[in-house]
Amino acid sequence: MTTNEPIRVTVLGLGAMGGALATALIDGGHRTTVWNRSPARAEPFAGRGAAVAATAAEAVRASPVVIACLLDHASVRDVLDPLAADLRGRILVNVTTTSPAQARELAAWGATVGVDCLDGGVLAVPGMIGRPGASVLYSGSAAAFQRCRPLLHRWGTSTYLGADPGLASLYDLALLAGMYTMFAGFLHGAAMVAPAGVTAGEFATRAAPWLAAMTDGLRHFADVVDGGDYAVAGQQSLEFSDLSALVDASAEQGLSTEVVDMVQRLIRRQIDGGHGGEGFARIIESIRTG
Amino acid sequence: MTTNEPIRVTVLGLGAMGGALATALIDGGHRTTVWNRSPARAEPFAGRGAAVAATAAEAVRASPVVIACLLDHASVRDVLDPLAADLRGRILVNVTTTSPAQARELAAWGATVGVDCLDGGVLAVPGMIGRPGASVLYSGSAAAFQRCRPLLHRWGTSTYLGADPGLASLYDLALLAGMYTMFAGFLHGAAMVAPAGVTAGEFATRAAPWLAAMTDGLRHFADVVDGGDYAVAGQQSLEFSDLSALVDASAEQGLSTEVVDMVQRLIRRQIDGGHGGEGFARIIESIRTG
Repeated sequence: MTTNEPIRVTVLGLGAMGGALATALIDGGHRTTVWNRSPARAEPFAGRGAAVAATAAEAVRASPVVIACLLDHASVRDVLDPLAADLRGRILVNVTTTSPAQARELAAWGATVGVDCLDGGVLAVPGMIGRPGASVLYSGSAAAFQRCRPLLHRWGTSTYLGADPGLASLYDLALLAGMYTMFAGFLHGAAMVAPAGVTAGEFATRAAPWLAAMTDGLRHFADVVDGGDYAVAGQQSLEFSDLSALVDASAEQGLSTEVVDMVQRLIRRQIDGGHGGEGFARIIESIRTG
Repeated sequence: MTTNEPIRVTVLGLGAMGGALATALIDGGHRTTVWNRSPARAEPFAGRGAAVAATAAEAVRASPVVIACLLDHASVRDVLDPLAADLRGRILVNVTTTSPAQARELAAWGATVGVDCLDGGVLAVPGMIGRPGASVLYSGSAAAFQRCRPLLHRWGTSTYLGADPGLASLYDLALLAGMYTMFAGFLHGAAMVAPAGVTAGEFATRAAPWLAAMTDGLRHFADVVDGGDYAVAGQQSLEFSDLSALVDASAEQGLSTEVVDMVQRLIRRQIDGGHGGEGFARIIESIRTG
């Protein structure tokens, strides 16, 4: 099989994300079999050219590559454990959101039953699948990744991170940590300006480009962390970064200060440890040492 | 005086930011007088074409517009309180980082002594001043803003937010809340992937464009907040956003979970309040109600 030949593929799970992944495969010309626990969600896919399987076992047997996009790790095990014999010799690409430990557990199970496992972390919302900007991280079986590339690239940019099956999930969670934390920071800011009559929309108009521009600074923090010298010249010091004014202004507006208190605690632990003259990147030590 | 005629201007305070602001004014062709508490920092500006004043009083008397860029609010009052008579009839643009309450206090003092006050919040590091991307928010006297525009636009994009002198500072702090919180989230993510052998630099290479792309979502949150209906269709629900997997994976890596715990608490309070089926933007209610 060359990389240009369509690969037969099965998608288990047709929620918002699973449905978007299946649609991109169908649109890419792959013979696609779909299955969903509640059949109503699968029906529309028949009209789009997919084969709708009546059971998960039938779906698995239809294709050499099986994509799982289910609710969580427990759902994956519930659906796949009884199908070990059917899965033998096939490739399983699990894009269900799971923890690194769960991804490793699934890969270990796959090894015992003869299934080559690849774990995927989708960095996109369903509407982005198959469009520029969608990115999926993979880890686990390198052979499975190579074999499936013609399928995977239908979804967006595919990146293979390494053989540790937990790596894609770990990376995915780390990026989500950044995203959710940023979202909370934005909403805190929106709550701060609201009493002054500024709508969230007006605030977003300034905050979105501001925060996007400030992501440039992340590379500088990374250089400092990797360089191992938090005192390297040219940085804003932790003492200068003290957030008391921010905490006080939030409290004056009658807001919970827990969003900014979190950052202030990370800063204060380093200042209290005698590192106030060093750079902001040093707060990673507050996170590392708990 | 037309808006194209150079305005004589005085800059009090020549730290990294004050020095950058003064340099941009000198380069813009304005007759600039500078003063700094420790004279050594002022000397280099003589060679660049500025008049170096020996005292703050002399500096104030040299120009119709006085820029203050000092350490903090207390420094501003220390320097300016004795100069009330010298300042009378002039414009004071205070770009010192202060709280909204302090900005209002300075404007009230200015009104009693006959000084027209404009407060500025600089959204830039010193190296960005006078270059694309630098932005300064102003509030307070609209007349002072109009009069000073030819000066202010030397620094970057100037935006006047309104007559409340505290507004620029409030806005500035709200944007900094978003920025510092995002920084903490990024460093948490970098700490998560480090035990898997991923450098902070590698993580930044993916996280910076990812977070920049995710700022697009802020406008959607803002629409939901301004629309007042957190249950509007098409959103990811709070229940789906439960961060247990993120908290657990962080703890498994031996990290402090306080960064992600903060977001999880904001989410959980809304779920516990019966709003788990509503959208993520609802966490602003956790911030508003403390």
